[in-house]
Amino acid sequence: MASSPNSITMEELDLERNGRAERSQWLLHAPEPPGLVSELMSSIRETVFPNGNKFSSSVKKQPVSKTMISVLKGIFPILCLFRNYKAAKFKNDLMAGLTLASLSIPQSIGYANLAKLDPQFGLYTSVIPPLIYAFMGSSREIAIGPVAVVSLLISSMIQDVVDPSIDPTTYKKIVFTVTFFAGIFQASFGLLRLGFLVDFLSHAAIVGFMGGAAIVIGMQQLKGLLGISHFTTKTDIISVLASVWRSIHHPGRRNKKLFWLPAIAPLVSVVLSTLLVFLTRADKHGVKIIKHIKGGLNPSSAQQLQFNGSHLGKTVKSGLIIAIVALTEAIAVGRSFASIKGYHIDGNKEMVAMGFMNIAGSLSSCYVATGSFSRTAVNFSAGCETVVSNIVMVVTVIICLELFTRLLYFTPVAILASIILSALPGLIDVNEAYNIWKIDKLDFLACIGAFLGVLFASVEVGLVVAVLLSIMKIILNSIRPGIQTLGRLPETEIFCNINQYKMAIKTPGVLIIRIDTDLLCFSNANYVRERIMRCVSEEKEESGGTEKGTTQALILDMTNLSNIDTSGILVLQELHKKLLSIDIELAMVNPSWKVTHKLKLAKFIDEISEKQIFLTVGEAVDASRRSKIVSF
Amino acid sequence: MASSPNSITMEELDLERNGRAERSQWLLHAPEPPGLVSELMSSIRETVFPNGNKFSSSVKKQPVSKTMISVLKGIFPILCLFRNYKAAKFKNDLMAGLTLASLSIPQSIGYANLAKLDPQFGLYTSVIPPLIYAFMGSSREIAIGPVAVVSLLISSMIQDVVDPSIDPTTYKKIVFTVTFFAGIFQASFGLLRLGFLVDFLSHAAIVGFMGGAAIVIGMQQLKGLLGISHFTTKTDIISVLASVWRSIHHPGRRNKKLFWLPAIAPLVSVVLSTLLVFLTRADKHGVKIIKHIKGGLNPSSAQQLQFNGSHLGKTVKSGLIIAIVALTEAIAVGRSFASIKGYHIDGNKEMVAMGFMNIAGSLSSCYVATGSFSRTAVNFSAGCETVVSNIVMVVTVIICLELFTRLLYFTPVAILASIILSALPGLIDVNEAYNIWKIDKLDFLACIGAFLGVLFASVEVGLVVAVLLSIMKIILNSIRPGIQTLGRLPETEIFCNINQYKMAIKTPGVLIIRIDTDLLCFSNANYVRERIMRCVSEEKEESGGTEKGTTQALILDMTNLSNIDTSGILVLQELHKKLLSIDIELAMVNPSWKVTHKLKLAKFIDEISEKQIFLTVGEAVDASRRSKIVSF
Repeated sequence: MASSPNSITMEELDLERNGRAERSQWLLHAPEPPGLVSELMSSIRETVFPNGNKFSSSVKKQPVSKTMISVLKGIFPILCLFRNYKAAKFKNDLMAGLTLASLSIPQSIGYANLAKLDPQFGLYTSVIPPLIYAFMGSSREIAIGPVAVVSLLISSMIQDVVDPSIDPTTYKKIVFTVTFFAGIFQASFGLLRLGFLVDFLSHAAIVGFMGGAAIVIGMQQLKGLLGISHFTTKTDIISVLASVWRSIHHPGRRNKKLFWLPAIAPLVSVVLSTLLVFLTRADKHGVKIIKHIKGGLNPSSAQQLQFNGSHLGKTVKSGLIIAIVALTEAIAVGRSFASIKGYHIDGNKEMVAMGFMNIAGSLSSCYVATGSFSRTAVNFSAGCETVVSNIVMVVTVIICLELFTRLLYFTPVAILASIILSALPGLIDVNEAYNIWKIDKLDFLACIGAFLGVLFASVEVGLVVAVLLSIMKIILNSIRPGIQTLGRLPETEIFCNINQYKMAIKTPGVLIIRIDTDLLCFSNANYVRERIMRCVSEEKEESGGTEKGTTQALILDMTNLSNIDTSGILVLQELHKKLLSIDIELAMVNPSWKVTHKLKLAKFIDEISEKQIFLTVGEAVDASRRSKIVSF
Repeated sequence: MASSPNSITMEELDLERNGRAERSQWLLHAPEPPGLVSELMSSIRETVFPNGNKFSSSVKKQPVSKTMISVLKGIFPILCLFRNYKAAKFKNDLMAGLTLASLSIPQSIGYANLAKLDPQFGLYTSVIPPLIYAFMGSSREIAIGPVAVVSLLISSMIQDVVDPSIDPTTYKKIVFTVTFFAGIFQASFGLLRLGFLVDFLSHAAIVGFMGGAAIVIGMQQLKGLLGISHFTTKTDIISVLASVWRSIHHPGRRNKKLFWLPAIAPLVSVVLSTLLVFLTRADKHGVKIIKHIKGGLNPSSAQQLQFNGSHLGKTVKSGLIIAIVALTEAIAVGRSFASIKGYHIDGNKEMVAMGFMNIAGSLSSCYVATGSFSRTAVNFSAGCETVVSNIVMVVTVIICLELFTRLLYFTPVAILASIILSALPGLIDVNEAYNIWKIDKLDFLACIGAFLGVLFASVEVGLVVAVLLSIMKIILNSIRPGIQTLGRLPETEIFCNINQYKMAIKTPGVLIIRIDTDLLCFSNANYVRERIMRCVSEEKEESGGTEKGTTQALILDMTNLSNIDTSGILVLQELHKKLLSIDIELAMVNPSWKVTHKLKLAKFIDEISEKQIFLTVGEAVDASRRSKIVSF
């Protein structure tokens, strides 16, 4: 209606129009996009050779011996390390390893207690798995060993099958079998490149899940603690709690020189409390002590794996769940520290390493090991350089197993509870939960769902709730896409959402709509059509209901749409027919490669005519205004 | 490297830069997008008042009596009809209604046979439900009554509970109860505005499902037919088949004057075959005949509904499944014919109408009715104008029930099978299946999954397979989004996918990537980051591995991204850190409203600095090239 007369000459107009027509031809006559088969092939290629063809090309140039070495280096990243490994690095690794060991030893004993196993099994788990990981894994900081949540999972899931207080031997056997299956699952996830499965536990879900698990563990331990509340080390516990709370919550922020203080606090409290009990003989006054810890290195447990019997189904299921939870924690830990140092971790390779370390562990009396967040943080702040710090830790634990287990005879059981408790605050990340609430309410729903599920139902229910809520988010997002009405930003050729940019100006007579979804498909196509038609009728009402046909063109900006299915195409056809019946022209802008191809196959491009397809919104607006000038 | 010296003066550059900076401020300081609560509220408002506030505003202006009338018209669209209804229209409706009835009567008897009910129940179902629909429904062409697929579903699902050949009374009672529940479900879907549930049976799935069901029905009928293959009407069947095949496959394409020929062919063959049997007394030579059909109008069946007993769970489940299938067919039929005539059908209102008609049907000895595709096509080509044609059909069926049921005594059962068979080819749409294969391979998978599921397992399995495959498509699309590398189209400021537009030119030193997803979330964020990092390293290799840092800027075009979650933000932060560590600047282009808001909340905008956010790719490229000029 109010179209200001254009100040361009007819010649310029023709030139412009030719350029536009040519560009539309580029759009319409692009080569065919890769079909499903070639997409599948390239997806498989990507999955199998994630680093492109680099590997195969380097193979051709090199002699066999060098190829062998590079393959070996691929499988055992530790081999890459020897080239540049110097004394200074070793010194750092040695210090970090010793610090790590001083935290690892008491934690391992504590977590074994949580998993309802004898203390030595925790120590065993701090020997074989970190050793295997050191050779196969690619993270430099991660501290491998038993962790709180996995220990809780083990005891809570296997207790349903066998009660450890009634039949500890069978319980132990099933723990090893579960560990074996967890390893098998982890390794196969890695080998089959199913790394994305771990992504289904979203960041928000993990935060909620960890928080819930920490509270459940805390309740269990507090119950134990309160039973012996007359015990004298109570103040000690509080100090441990406070110091470790600080150490975990602010890694790197506090005084660098004192990093070892909170890290060795657990060991100090173990030593002090053990001495105290030994001196006062408090065990005779009701304080429970660990008593005998079996010394010596890991015995073989290959004979104890149970592949028959009625528990097999439950064992495999537990193995799968524990495998996923352990991987999720390890990969989250590995990635966050790798990104601080700016190197890359290959999730699939990590999974293979974790799988093999747990398979090896299950054959040598270990239960499921993974990357511990609190110990990794300590390892990192202690200045570790390579996985050698893990090896130092292993050697220290071995020495402890060989020589010092007798010294732990008088260690009060309560101190173990306090060590477990001291690691829990690090798992409850209220700040992050608040951040999630602030940023994304649906994420928070997954977070709180996992939290409450773990707290009030069970660990498995919490996991399932978290995954289901996360998948629901994807589906919800797919069935209710938004649409934006676009307007021109003043003095530019840029068209933007008029709600976001209040200064954007609508073009009279033209309604420009952008569809906010990447896949116009059965689940959202009808909804999108209804939203668009509502926009059209609202536009009509605004411009005064009586003046028929004020909106003369509807421009669909399809930039966001990367794919479409047959239901989506049907809906576009219906939309086109409806718009025709109320005298509105439909133009489409910048349909993506696949969409253009499919619209051509479905003959929809012929239906609306090639002239109604444009590369930019500006061109479509100009064309529709010009056709108005012509038609008036 | 090869950046050609810019021919602009410093002043122009400053002006340009100020404009750009101002526009970036528009982007960064847009008002807050609506939060979850206000989005939920507006979603509820949209759902409850799908036509905006029109209703409430019109209420205010009008007196009470007029308001009442408009409310009544909303509930009973037939009231709108009387204003313009003229004799010419009625003549058309009368003709269409009579044609419809001539197809309806034999089909109703046939489908009742398919549902393992006595013939009169088919006729009953062609009385009450179309009458109720005529008053409440909004489609003008749809022909309501029993249909093949629903009849098959009824018999196949309820046979598991009660065998109709052993206990026909209980079977009948359960059929009415299932009909009642189906009506309740349909009405509540409509009232609760859950219309989108029907969308989960995608177009492709329906094509496969219908084809599978048609073949299953055909096998059953053929088995019956082959048993009496000496019967003389065999040629008749073929002619019926051929004529109806043509009538359904090309509605509107063939000679308009002869539309009634295939439509009345079933009635003619019923009359002829009945006469033939009557004259030759073939029933005494082994030809099965219908024998007694109970005359008179629908008796009440309110007393026969069974709400207790052990079958209730199965009954409710069957009701739900049949409700969804019936709705899907009816809405697909209604929508496709409404779009030909260019008027709108409100899915939720349709569901309420269907629900009430089936509830009323269940109380008056009807089984589940819905919109029949073949009869709607006949009604349409017979030139129906309004739902009055359905009423004419109902009156004809009533007359038939009252007067002519005795005449059907000698009708051979085989002719019913042939009538059912004749309707089947319309359900098997090989052309459409081929189209789906051509356009979208994943859609075809859903189609063939539904087809094979129905054929080799059961109707329910087919449905479940189709829905699961469709949902899998959404999730697959979400976890594996594509990324595009963009280049500038020659002589423009347009940046496009370099694979789609072979003429697009990459800007040296700058890598421009567009993320092809609408939601960067837990399920795809890690994958996207890995794809981007692979692009970066490929770019490095291409430009000669040794020349370090050729790529100096990575521009992320976030236009397509309409939302992001906390996992997505974490990944962007990791990406930024990694790029920093290899000296590549990260710039972001046109993040959408919600994304900008969330990145601000997560303080990521502060991390990468406001200067690295641009409105268009062109501006980002210019800025990065200028910063290079400055830095050299």
